[in-house]
Amino acid sequence: MNQESRHANDIFKDFRVQSVSEFFRKNAAMLGYTGKIRSLTTLIHEGVTNALDACEDARILPDIRVEIEELGSEHYRVAIEDNASGIPLNYIPEVFGRMLAGSKAHRNIQSRGQQGIGISGAVMYSQVTTGKPSVVITSTGDSHVVKCEVQIDVEHNIGRIVHKKKRKNDEKWRGTKLLVEAKKVLYNKSRYSPYNYLRMTSISNPHANITFVEPDGSKLLFERSITTVPTSPKEIKPHPQGISPHDMLLMARYTDKRTASSFLLNDFVRISKTRLGDIEKLISFSLGKNPSKLTWKEAEELVQAFSQVKFMAPPTEGLIPIGDENVRKGLETTINPEFVYATTRSAVTYKGGIPFIVEVGVAYGGNHNSTNGIDIIRYANSAPLIFDQGGCAITEAVNSIDWRRYGVKEEDKTPLTLFINLVSTHIPYTSAGKQAIAMEEEIYSEIRNGIMDVGRSLKSFLRGKRRAHEKRKKRDTLRKYAPETARALSMLIKKKESSPVEEKLYAVIAKKYGEQAG
Amino acid sequence: MNQESRHANDIFKDFRVQSVSEFFRKNAAMLGYTGKIRSLTTLIHEGVTNALDACEDARILPDIRVEIEELGSEHYRVAIEDNASGIPLNYIPEVFGRMLAGSKAHRNIQSRGQQGIGISGAVMYSQVTTGKPSVVITSTGDSHVVKCEVQIDVEHNIGRIVHKKKRKNDEKWRGTKLLVEAKKVLYNKSRYSPYNYLRMTSISNPHANITFVEPDGSKLLFERSITTVPTSPKEIKPHPQGISPHDMLLMARYTDKRTASSFLLNDFVRISKTRLGDIEKLISFSLGKNPSKLTWKEAEELVQAFSQVKFMAPPTEGLIPIGDENVRKGLETTINPEFVYATTRSAVTYKGGIPFIVEVGVAYGGNHNSTNGIDIIRYANSAPLIFDQGGCAITEAVNSIDWRRYGVKEEDKTPLTLFINLVSTHIPYTSAGKQAIAMEEEIYSEIRNGIMDVGRSLKSFLRGKRRAHEKRKKRDTLRKYAPETARALSMLIKKKESSPVEEKLYAVIAKKYGEQAG
Repeated sequence: MNQESRHANDIFKDFRVQSVSEFFRKNAAMLGYTGKIRSLTTLIHEGVTNALDACEDARILPDIRVEIEELGSEHYRVAIEDNASGIPLNYIPEVFGRMLAGSKAHRNIQSRGQQGIGISGAVMYSQVTTGKPSVVITSTGDSHVVKCEVQIDVEHNIGRIVHKKKRKNDEKWRGTKLLVEAKKVLYNKSRYSPYNYLRMTSISNPHANITFVEPDGSKLLFERSITTVPTSPKEIKPHPQGISPHDMLLMARYTDKRTASSFLLNDFVRISKTRLGDIEKLISFSLGKNPSKLTWKEAEELVQAFSQVKFMAPPTEGLIPIGDENVRKGLETTINPEFVYATTRSAVTYKGGIPFIVEVGVAYGGNHNSTNGIDIIRYANSAPLIFDQGGCAITEAVNSIDWRRYGVKEEDKTPLTLFINLVSTHIPYTSAGKQAIAMEEEIYSEIRNGIMDVGRSLKSFLRGKRRAHEKRKKRDTLRKYAPETARALSMLIKKKESSPVEEKLYAVIAKKYGEQAG
Repeated sequence: MNQESRHANDIFKDFRVQSVSEFFRKNAAMLGYTGKIRSLTTLIHEGVTNALDACEDARILPDIRVEIEELGSEHYRVAIEDNASGIPLNYIPEVFGRMLAGSKAHRNIQSRGQQGIGISGAVMYSQVTTGKPSVVITSTGDSHVVKCEVQIDVEHNIGRIVHKKKRKNDEKWRGTKLLVEAKKVLYNKSRYSPYNYLRMTSISNPHANITFVEPDGSKLLFERSITTVPTSPKEIKPHPQGISPHDMLLMARYTDKRTASSFLLNDFVRISKTRLGDIEKLISFSLGKNPSKLTWKEAEELVQAFSQVKFMAPPTEGLIPIGDENVRKGLETTINPEFVYATTRSAVTYKGGIPFIVEVGVAYGGNHNSTNGIDIIRYANSAPLIFDQGGCAITEAVNSIDWRRYGVKEEDKTPLTLFINLVSTHIPYTSAGKQAIAMEEEIYSEIRNGIMDVGRSLKSFLRGKRRAHEKRKKRDTLRKYAPETARALSMLIKKKESSPVEEKLYAVIAKKYGEQAG
């Protein structure tokens, strides 16, 4: 042993535990706070995601207002207002000032936010760059409107209200407005900007009105194109196919059922009495035992048995996709394309019995937002994914497609917009910044299937377009030679004037190849 | 208001707080557990990183043994053993079973691990896929060896010892051995495999002996090429340039200094009395005040003043790079190249006064590990980065280089290995999986500078190589025509035998263009 070497007691005296807020303060890049433009878009993203989820929870058509104000060089104030349920006073510090707190993470339900990190992260970024608390103005629609200043105690991951004021709610307003100030951020209109983020949000949320006031004061309105409140997603019981032994034992610990068989019948979807019989034939123990007494080996046996039994696909009522019709409307309203087609696939599952739905839309032409070919617009539970395009399963799936098979001859010159939305109770993000979807095999191939669906429609459109183009070319060539042909014909039939013949020739061409445009 | 809309009280009744372990269990992909091959490499990575850091803490030459055993289909046991200080019994649950616990995160010191997540994450992945606790065998070199089975209580982020045994330490062994079992993992020898991970680790840790036993029983030894224990990194006080007001106020809260001026003089590096005088002229308040009374505005004023004063660069003693000589040795031993060159740049800082050093090595030929050109091997504090190559500042910097300027004519046909190591007290990873470095401007351009340094040497080598190649070509041509020329000459000087003339010709060619190889 080395003489200078140190003893364990000496080394471990520095051992400490840090809070999750402290962790993310030091690693803000993991939450998307990296670069001036991206940091501002991340703030907007967190605010708008929260607002849309809040409206969905409250079953209300969203009226969202986003305002960005320039306060100085690389210094902005962002205000995000919604018309949702409002937040009861005692939950304000938890919602805005505590990480990993929320109403979504422990439930098996589809939502934009799921981790309870996003909005507290925004408050923290604001605090770390400006030293200021964030301002929350909210009312649940009762007699008062509350205005709070909220701070995060980073060391303990606790939210604190540092200032509070109440006023009468004479106008019966209901909703929440959040004001965060940030430095080291920058506004522009690039692909990575709040502007493009809201444009993409508007495509995937055709039921939302979004008002956007830019730093220069100009006001944009992304208007809703449908006026029905979408059905709310429901909590879904896990599907047996693909669940892990660990998750099953976790469920078994919390169930109120007294036997393993009633636990299986009640706490999962698609396990019928018949299927239960099939399962029993494949395992070595009795399902009469208490579920909390299930061992790891028994859970593994069950998972193994599940993989050999045929179950119905998971129910689709819990997951609420945007719907092919609405995706189409969203793309039409915002992009105004020559051609649009959309598909909403059936629900399937990936590991852990997690159901998901893939939606794909394709648009040709219009306000196409890319200078070199296909513009891939990615979504997870209708929330746009703007950054980390490279490491995302959606991008990988798109890149794996041979577009020539769908009539796209020159990929980089074809003005295609490809909309892809992954709907799930649990989106497998690759990082806490929630910008890329992990390469889960089932998700990857389902996205490919969706692209192939729309690809076939695209092919017909492009074939028609190409035929029309060829027809047009033929017509133009014929028209070009019409005067000469007319002159030659006139000479043959000994007419002095060729123009009547020419007229007739034009008429024949028009009849066969269509009128000239314009 | 919509009649069916829900009230806030109804919505918020589901509000809960989850533990950080629960968060990472659900989002294991964020820690690198995604895909069968990557998951296994991540387990090895976490174990080896911990072992190397432990040896560094203990100031010992690392003897590390990694063994992978196949237990069934996609089911392996991994054992990682070190000869470091061992772990005191009461710290075992904290080290292996609690996330965000560690001795590194709260100190401003260079280390491979920094978050206190990695090794607990490995224990959790094992637990979630096999249901089994991990086994820790350790001794601090005292009278006993402890063997524990450790589990994570995911819901509360607490480690628990579920089984414990002590035996006499007759052999006076000191060190730690960790055994984790995992399912849904796969061993192979690809670029993303444990094998390549250990090969890369051996290049950046020329002072370590690494023994690797593969699942088929074959044993590989990566031997150390230097036998001195590297100097240990030291905790470094922050440098004033680039610190944020938030970080300064955090420091001011914990300082034991009574005045702001002594706080600045003592708790930062490179603030001398002269510099303090410069700072005082630029601010609107007196530095005689208690540092804990500093306001945000005053901290901002100080940060602003710092940016206008010239400070010495941060000290280099705290950061310990591998060293150009050792990088060269590591590359030589492992790759056995035709040419190798390495540079260790001076320390500079990026935002928040965080010092860093870039090391770049280049090797030509040898066991070059890429089929299409430059093999970029990336490191952060000497730990290999294998995944997420795309989104990493190192890759971006390499891709921004015009290699033709350094004599590389066909990038995809040149057998180059490019070694890049970022050394810092805080590596700005893009995600908790710690596989890619965020695009910090200062880091990006410093990496580029390092590449340009080695590029110039590479250029001379390639120029020499090209000249030698041309010389060789000329010699071969001359030798080819020597017999004929000799015959002609012999005829001219009327000799019957041309061979003596031929011999002389060869001698002349050899003198001018060198001997023929072989």
